[in-house]
Amino acid sequence: MATLPNDIANTVTRALEEDIGSGDISAMLIPADRMAEARLITRETAILCGLPWAREVIRQIDPAMNVEWYFGDGDSLIANDIVATFSGPARSLLTAERCVLNFLQTLSGTATFAARLRSLVAHTSVTLLDTRKTLPGLRSAQKYAVRTGGCTNHRMGLYDAFLIKENHISACGSIAAAVEAARDFDATKTVEVEVESLEQLEQSIAAGAGIVMLDNFSTEQMIKAVKINAGRVKLEASGGVDESTLVQIAETGVDFISVGALTKNCEAIDLSLRFD
Amino acid sequence: MATLPNDIANTVTRALEEDIGSGDISAMLIPADRMAEARLITRETAILCGLPWAREVIRQIDPAMNVEWYFGDGDSLIANDIVATFSGPARSLLTAERCVLNFLQTLSGTATFAARLRSLVAHTSVTLLDTRKTLPGLRSAQKYAVRTGGCTNHRMGLYDAFLIKENHISACGSIAAAVEAARDFDATKTVEVEVESLEQLEQSIAAGAGIVMLDNFSTEQMIKAVKINAGRVKLEASGGVDESTLVQIAETGVDFISVGALTKNCEAIDLSLRFD
Amino acid sequence: MATLPNDIANTVTRALEEDIGSGDISAMLIPADRMAEARLITRETAILCGLPWAREVIRQIDPAMNVEWYFGDGDSLIANDIVATFSGPARSLLTAERCVLNFLQTLSGTATFAARLRSLVAHTSVTLLDTRKTLPGLRSAQKYAVRTGGCTNHRMGLYDAFLIKENHISACGSIAAAVEAARDFDATKTVEVEVESLEQLEQSIAAGAGIVMLDNFSTEQMIKAVKINAGRVKLEASGGVDESTLVQIAETGVDFISVGALTKNCEAIDLSLRFD
Amino acid sequence: MATLPNDIANTVTRALEEDIGSGDISAMLIPADRMAEARLITRETAILCGLPWAREVIRQIDPAMNVEWYFGDGDSLIANDIVATFSGPARSLLTAERCVLNFLQTLSGTATFAARLRSLVAHTSVTLLDTRKTLPGLRSAQKYAVRTGGCTNHRMGLYDAFLIKENHISACGSIAAAVEAARDFDATKTVEVEVESLEQLEQSIAAGAGIVMLDNFSTEQMIKAVKINAGRVKLEASGGVDESTLVQIAETGVDFISVGALTKNCEAIDLSLRFD
Amino acid sequence: MATLPNDIANTVTRALEEDIGSGDISAMLIPADRMAEARLITRETAILCGLPWAREVIRQIDPAMNVEWYFGDGDSLIANDIVATFSGPARSLLTAERCVLNFLQTLSGTATFAARLRSLVAHTSVTLLDTRKTLPGLRSAQKYAVRTGGCTNHRMGLYDAFLIKENHISACGSIAAAVEAARDFDATKTVEVEVESLEQLEQSIAAGAGIVMLDNFSTEQMIKAVKINAGRVKLEASGGVDESTLVQIAETGVDFISVGALTKNCEAIDLSLRFD
Amino acid sequence: MATLPNDIANTVTRALEEDIGSGDISAMLIPADRMAEARLITRETAILCGLPWAREVIRQIDPAMNVEWYFGDGDSLIANDIVATFSGPARSLLTAERCVLNFLQTLSGTATFAARLRSLVAHTSVTLLDTRKTLPGLRSAQKYAVRTGGCTNHRMGLYDAFLIKENHISACGSIAAAVEAARDFDATKTVEVEVESLEQLEQSIAAGAGIVMLDNFSTEQMIKAVKINAGRVKLEASGGVDESTLVQIAETGVDFISVGALTKNCEAIDLSLRFD
Repeated sequence: MATLPNDIANTVTRALEEDIGSGDISAMLIPADRMAEARLITRETAILCGLPWAREVIRQIDPAMNVEWYFGDGDSLIANDIVATFSGPARSLLTAERCVLNFLQTLSGTATFAARLRSLVAHTSVTLLDTRKTLPGLRSAQKYAVRTGGCTNHRMGLYDAFLIKENHISACGSIAAAVEAARDFDATKTVEVEVESLEQLEQSIAAGAGIVMLDNFSTEQMIKAVKINAGRVKLEASGGVDESTLVQIAETGVDFISVGALTKNCEAIDLSLRFD
Repeated sequence: MATLPNDIANTVTRALEEDIGSGDISAMLIPADRMAEARLITRETAILCGLPWAREVIRQIDPAMNVEWYFGDGDSLIANDIVATFSGPARSLLTAERCVLNFLQTLSGTATFAARLRSLVAHTSVTLLDTRKTLPGLRSAQKYAVRTGGCTNHRMGLYDAFLIKENHISACGSIAAAVEAARDFDATKTVEVEVESLEQLEQSIAAGAGIVMLDNFSTEQMIKAVKINAGRVKLEASGGVDESTLVQIAETGVDFISVGALTKNCEAIDLSLRFD
Repeated sequence: MATLPNDIANTVTRALEEDIGSGDISAMLIPADRMAEARLITRETAILCGLPWAREVIRQIDPAMNVEWYFGDGDSLIANDIVATFSGPARSLLTAERCVLNFLQTLSGTATFAARLRSLVAHTSVTLLDTRKTLPGLRSAQKYAVRTGGCTNHRMGLYDAFLIKENHISACGSIAAAVEAARDFDATKTVEVEVESLEQLEQSIAAGAGIVMLDNFSTEQMIKAVKINAGRVKLEASGGVDESTLVQIAETGVDFISVGALTKNCEAIDLSLRFD
Repeated sequence: MATLPNDIANTVTRALEEDIGSGDISAMLIPADRMAEARLITRETAILCGLPWAREVIRQIDPAMNVEWYFGDGDSLIANDIVATFSGPARSLLTAERCVLNFLQTLSGTATFAARLRSLVAHTSVTLLDTRKTLPGLRSAQKYAVRTGGCTNHRMGLYDAFLIKENHISACGSIAAAVEAARDFDATKTVEVEVESLEQLEQSIAAGAGIVMLDNFSTEQMIKAVKINAGRVKLEASGGVDESTLVQIAETGVDFISVGALTKNCEAIDLSLRFD
Repeated sequence: MATLPNDIANTVTRALEEDIGSGDISAMLIPADRMAEARLITRETAILCGLPWAREVIRQIDPAMNVEWYFGDGDSLIANDIVATFSGPARSLLTAERCVLNFLQTLSGTATFAARLRSLVAHTSVTLLDTRKTLPGLRSAQKYAVRTGGCTNHRMGLYDAFLIKENHISACGSIAAAVEAARDFDATKTVEVEVESLEQLEQSIAAGAGIVMLDNFSTEQMIKAVKINAGRVKLEASGGVDESTLVQIAETGVDFISVGALTKNCEAIDLSLRFD
Repeated sequence: MATLPNDIANTVTRALEEDIGSGDISAMLIPADRMAEARLITRETAILCGLPWAREVIRQIDPAMNVEWYFGDGDSLIANDIVATFSGPARSLLTAERCVLNFLQTLSGTATFAARLRSLVAHTSVTLLDTRKTLPGLRSAQKYAVRTGGCTNHRMGLYDAFLIKENHISACGSIAAAVEAARDFDATKTVEVEVESLEQLEQSIAAGAGIVMLDNFSTEQMIKAVKINAGRVKLEASGGVDESTLVQIAETGVDFISVGALTKNCEAIDLSLRFD
């Protein structure tokens, strides 16, 4: 699993704190020794995602709960599938219910959307990337969901790749100078340059960039860029990407398309926990 | 401001940690003393929301940045409005850009959706409520956005109101017994009961519930419930609520409609920071 | 158990940090493999309270310790009762001893006092409530002890019920306006109004308050208030409550009496751990 | 100020979290720009204690509040003294009120009790010490209050002095061996030995102990111990100490008396904030 | 500054906690209003490093202290240089002294060593890199010191670049398969391959690796590798690097040499604070 | 084990966070169910130290890993000794490898150096002490390593012993006054005085100091100091201590020598993990 264990634990802790706060007062109305069972059901078609977070919710609230999972992350679900059965102390199941569902419905929503976009461009060799436009506090979880849905991660944050934009270029004097400064700072990070013209593309290739982002290029410009590049660097299309333009962009031959909508929007999958 | 100051600080800290991690390496390419200015622009109609979080991002990254805001939370924006101007060290502005935008685009998205739903039922006296179906880690921020958009908060979590469901009723033996047990535990919390029939509604009113949730009632049943209740308790419609059914439900005369879509989905507002 | 698990863990962690700091240096004088046994004994009559915290101390210091409990929270103890037997590594038992005792002696003190006050008014139907006058950092633990002793919790903090006082009333213009503003903000929280006269009581009932706090009313005024109210809202007596006035107030027929002394004072129960 | 700044900040943060939680909902009824003033008044005689914590509450909630203090920690107050005047945003003052009072009433209670005990033995040269019997989470604050009231701190926790008891002695084989083992471990920590007989006192002095605790000695035994010791080590009386026995013990000539009641019990001082 | 602000604050907080703990008891012997001045002096030649941490120590302990710095990070010092003058409350200066010195002496030690190594190979075009062999908890600070001394950072941790070793290759079946799997996972991270032979080097280049680490190659093998590579990928020499072998390796023409000793060892610079 | 369990956990958590960050991306190239084995080998003579930290790394990353240790802390190792065998999920072993090694190589380095120094003075009765000159964040770990190597701890920090220096003396007026003030503040902490002359030594003994630090005394002065003292207090030599002067100082008859180099420098032991 590619997400830091501590990050999962911290994200779950925070979700439990905001939901449980000083205690689940309704659960107190049920005797401590009452046991219960429940089935987790999906009400719509989806790609399942979020088991590590759901498991951590269970672990933190009460490890005495037991969950049997019938599907795993990345599996396709159809309406009315029984995803899992939960059993254990009734109080704990009631307390855990909403947090488990919130993680699964959010992350499955992202994975499902990623899978749909990917299927649209399956006839091309393009790779769909996410961005840093994410729901605050959920980045690594959302990036996990993007991968689960069959897309690929762009950088995690400001720390793990250079992205040289207009401001950096003008501060350094030229694309070449900016790329060189980046290499002097850190020898192992990919240097990506955002360009607004074919001239800048040429300069970036010459400077030794690893990836070049074509910012708001028309599809005609993208086609030219692909020809000029001739495979020397990776080309990333960015800007103005939505379901209506995606295929057209993919067919230009660019290597990557980054899609902000993958992680800045969220349409939750309709899941519910039915007590027996 | 109704959100705990510490909560804002913690939410922002977490967002900065996931985005900045071990440092913004691209910003290093810019001299430390370079200054910059930028304008925050909206590309679409929206209700603005999220200033306390945006301000906290600025404060945590570098208080030497200065922001002049031309709109406040709750204000209506139209495409191309200049929301604010940012000035300060160029490194800091570049590092802060994405986090500021992520908070504003997410929370304005929620506020804008809340305002749209509310306008649909403005001709009735119904109050639209949010739920606990939220994006993990963002609950208090989303609940703030719901209020900013003109809707009203339901309970924050499991700790601040009783919601007695089937499990609690069967454990206590009856609705009356469950409501009494709740009162013995905590004298100041509202006791809400979720009912599936008019008989249960009558029992809940008799037991002294404060709110009764009509779970998946048809509109015909809701109309009967309103008549039976005759103003004795607050009635909340829940389940199967979307933009197509909202008005119809509102016109039944129920007091509250709770809408999970307010906070479980998110469609980000398109905002950008343009450097001069 | 009505207290948030994380809260118990955090409270215990903090207590261990302040007591153990950089390490129990005296325990180092004992071989790591030396085992020991000890009995936890009460030296006076008490209502036992605090097992979840004691158990967490054991768990955090060394789960290899074993404790057999002969009494549970809420049980009555008399002098020289053996409450529990502890066994395990001698170092760990010595390190844990004081923290275990500090939680039990403090919380049993509160539970014992709560039970005594409650017995004084057992012939009435009054409910005794705690307040927000608590020992900083121990609120949820003390509120648990109050319940263990047979009294009932008032709100946990500023977040889970409205309490409208003079300042709020004057800011809103009237009691009616203040109650309405509260309802607009949050539909599920109880609205309590603090009043200083029978006129204000009438206004509060008319405004739809859920609880009315009679602030420093004489017992004569309370009796009038009970008559006027005629069961429409819950009446809470507050101010000037101590063991000498409690019965008299209870007999006025008010629903609730809030008692700051329950949690702002603490007289520890005398417990000790005797090594065999 | 002898208490770690971070510790004060953390203690206050925790107190605010438990009181404010997801936000002071009542304060929302007051316009954000409404200002207010209030006087902090004592209703009884006391030694004031807790200003650093009160100041930190103000700082964390809203530094725009201003407080003018007319007394400082350690000053004597009589009923109706105006301790301080508060001014600032009305919302912030209302939110801060209870936390400020809780710290001051608790710590002033301890300081006042410490001062009373000390005055009882002012005619002797004895030093009154506190113990590790404290309210969980408040140890350094209580120890500060003990000093404010004119008594002296015993060790802060298990980490800053050796206290060799029966278990340690039997594990090492003799008092001499235990004292030597302690010195080998850490060269700078005081070694105190708890003894149950005059023979053990002699052995402890011979072993080079720095302090000897006379555990549950009768006053006759203490007088003998003082004579035998002849000033070679410090003698600490412990066990069975209360207001009725304190003077008698002090007059035996022991150097120290440790008093658990100083910090395990708490009788809050009656303070209130009166809004103008 | 390339280090995450929060990371500096957290590192300093932790250092203060371990040093100050429950409070600087010696500082209590000095009146709270006593002021003092002191000069920070180096007793040996060094490259100064650590100002952001020193400033944060000052800020966290008492912002009323003032420091005038005469040198900045990266500046060369000779014995007896006055690096800075400190002024402010005497208590605070005494409490801060050791923490300030500990950060500066440690980080200046690393920067000084980095500068010495770099000067040894200044006649070549090699870049000296650090590794993940660091002092636990100080990685980003040490990496900052490495840059301050004129060397370059390798990856920060396991998260920001792929390093494919024998285990990964055998799990994937071949170098080519491993590199492809890495690219599918994350499109923006550099893929480095560790090789033990020239055959593996060829395979890595063919697979599209960005950097190839020559693990424990002899200098003869390195020369061959440089010739074979002909500038297609970056070559990194690793293993068996110390001051005696460094020049010889640099002269083989490899691009990078990674030096564990840069950060796994530490020889502190002798600095002291002299009070006036 | 004399180090606080929580401290070990926190130190390890921090080390894992800085190394693993958002996830070990290379480990993702290996199937989740692949198992592996590895041997931990030392490449040079050393005193082993750091098992509690290594075990905690294993526990936090994946308790499914198993480690069999053939040596314990304090044991002597020679080159090529197999220290332990590791087995478990291959991903987890690869992720844990560097953190385990970093703790062991750092702490074994300190223990090894401590043991070497101690052997140099084994013919005397001197005790070698560490100081507060430590690597920020690693103090309690380094102090554990010092003990493991056969030396003794000086105070942990500013909180657990008084060290009265020139500033304190001048603020109090005299050594006698400073020692008395310290005793009034805390009855159980050792009072150490740093002196610069034999006159100050006499004054310190008369004042009742527990330890006197002879600051930068020549060996002749130390010999005189030992004679004058005649065993009344403990004498500590400090300043100008290195391997070349250590024996000479030890032979003066002082009780303690404090050695900053024990913890301010670090030469890591060469350990490696060899996968089978």
